[in-house]
Amino acid sequence: MVSKNTIKRITSLGQKKYRQREGVFVAEGIKVVNELLLSSLELVELHTEDVSAFAKALSPQDQSKVNEATPAELKKLTFLKTAQKAVATFKMPEAIAIDRSGLTVVLDDVRDPGNLGTIIRLCDWFGIKQLVCSKATVDCYNPKVVQATMGSLTRVAIIYTDIDTYLASEHRPVFGTFMDGENIYAASLPQEGVIVMGNEANGISTGIEQLVTKRVAIPRFGITQATESLNVATATAICLSEFKRG
Amino acid sequence: MVSKNTIKRITSLGQKKYRQREGVFVAEGIKVVNELLLSSLELVELHTEDVSAFAKALSPQDQSKVNEATPAELKKLTFLKTAQKAVATFKMPEAIAIDRSGLTVVLDDVRDPGNLGTIIRLCDWFGIKQLVCSKATVDCYNPKVVQATMGSLTRVAIIYTDIDTYLASEHRPVFGTFMDGENIYAASLPQEGVIVMGNEANGISTGIEQLVTKRVAIPRFGITQATESLNVATATAICLSEFKRG
Repeated sequence: MVSKNTIKRITSLGQKKYRQREGVFVAEGIKVVNELLLSSLELVELHTEDVSAFAKALSPQDQSKVNEATPAELKKLTFLKTAQKAVATFKMPEAIAIDRSGLTVVLDDVRDPGNLGTIIRLCDWFGIKQLVCSKATVDCYNPKVVQATMGSLTRVAIIYTDIDTYLASEHRPVFGTFMDGENIYAASLPQEGVIVMGNEANGISTGIEQLVTKRVAIPRFGITQATESLNVATATAICLSEFKRG
Repeated sequence: MVSKNTIKRITSLGQKKYRQREGVFVAEGIKVVNELLLSSLELVELHTEDVSAFAKALSPQDQSKVNEATPAELKKLTFLKTAQKAVATFKMPEAIAIDRSGLTVVLDDVRDPGNLGTIIRLCDWFGIKQLVCSKATVDCYNPKVVQATMGSLTRVAIIYTDIDTYLASEHRPVFGTFMDGENIYAASLPQEGVIVMGNEANGISTGIEQLVTKRVAIPRFGITQATESLNVATATAICLSEFKRG
């Protein structure tokens, strides 16, 4: 059974202020919850209609945090269009310092939850250990982002900070994509560096552009007069592929 | 003013069977509608609260197809979460034959409208002129797909067909991505070929896999035991970038 208080508490976690006050976030679906259970994150509570689906991932001390719920109850807890078979809350990991080695991706005000989720999955795929986000970037603990990451959230450290201050103190080369940049397919791309990706509508902001030390461009092969640009998540896919392909 | 009949007619176009019966589809937003007006597509009707935004793109014979609408009326016409300043309908282009030259992308049951929209934008960016879709792939005239393409729909020809039959008769090499394929970064990628991308949950289906002549893999650089795969749209971005970078 899921109490009214539980429904109220969990649905309040759709708002960033309540997530921050409680220090917890919501994850949904058997696959995502199982991936988070197997990580170092601490489970707070798990409501599910299929307890057996978590048999392998649940530690003995977490058994008491599991509550059997009906599909109707899970429907009241979901943040997604289609209710999943499990809704869980986990404690947010503690803030960590930025590691200035290898490749770091920096997001300058990415607003769409689906784009952030896709970018986190890409960082995971390409072995990028840290993702640094401007404070106006959508919260990575937004339920839609958690869902879109499909578990990658546990393998990429995400740091929200004032990226102006951070980039001003960065000694690695700072890459950004601009129409007038050097062809990324011909550019020399180091294994130590920062890659800045910009906002969906406005790209990299003027203040951040001044901190970019290497301007690169993803060449367009289609009709060149078309005004359309690449979506930020697909541009990130192409950039990371280029940096890592060697 | 927008009549009740118009509202009924346009909202019915959210369903594929009505789009096919009428041979028209819906586009929304000043940017997308302007791009479609500038293409060879034929406008049927345009409802907008900002007629001046289309001054440059509207031909003299299209002026009579424009109707001034209030924001409240546009809200009744929209298929999107946020109503746009314009809703238009256009005639679907006539079916064309598959051009067996250059690079062709084939989709094997891609179901998510956002993914199809992103893939159409990528084809446009990388100069892929034709996109061949299995009959179970989401309809490219679905209002959400039209919106996600951001106008690229006018520059990429999209053909729905029985892809089993089509691929069986294809003489160009047929590429598909599989975990056990050759590293795509090391593979020889021709400028004449077919690239098959699979369904979000199941990848390339068994029947289509047998028609793939070159198996390639996008290497994972992150923790290799993670089960997560790349999203089909980002995998398409990486494949097309590799084929076109030279």
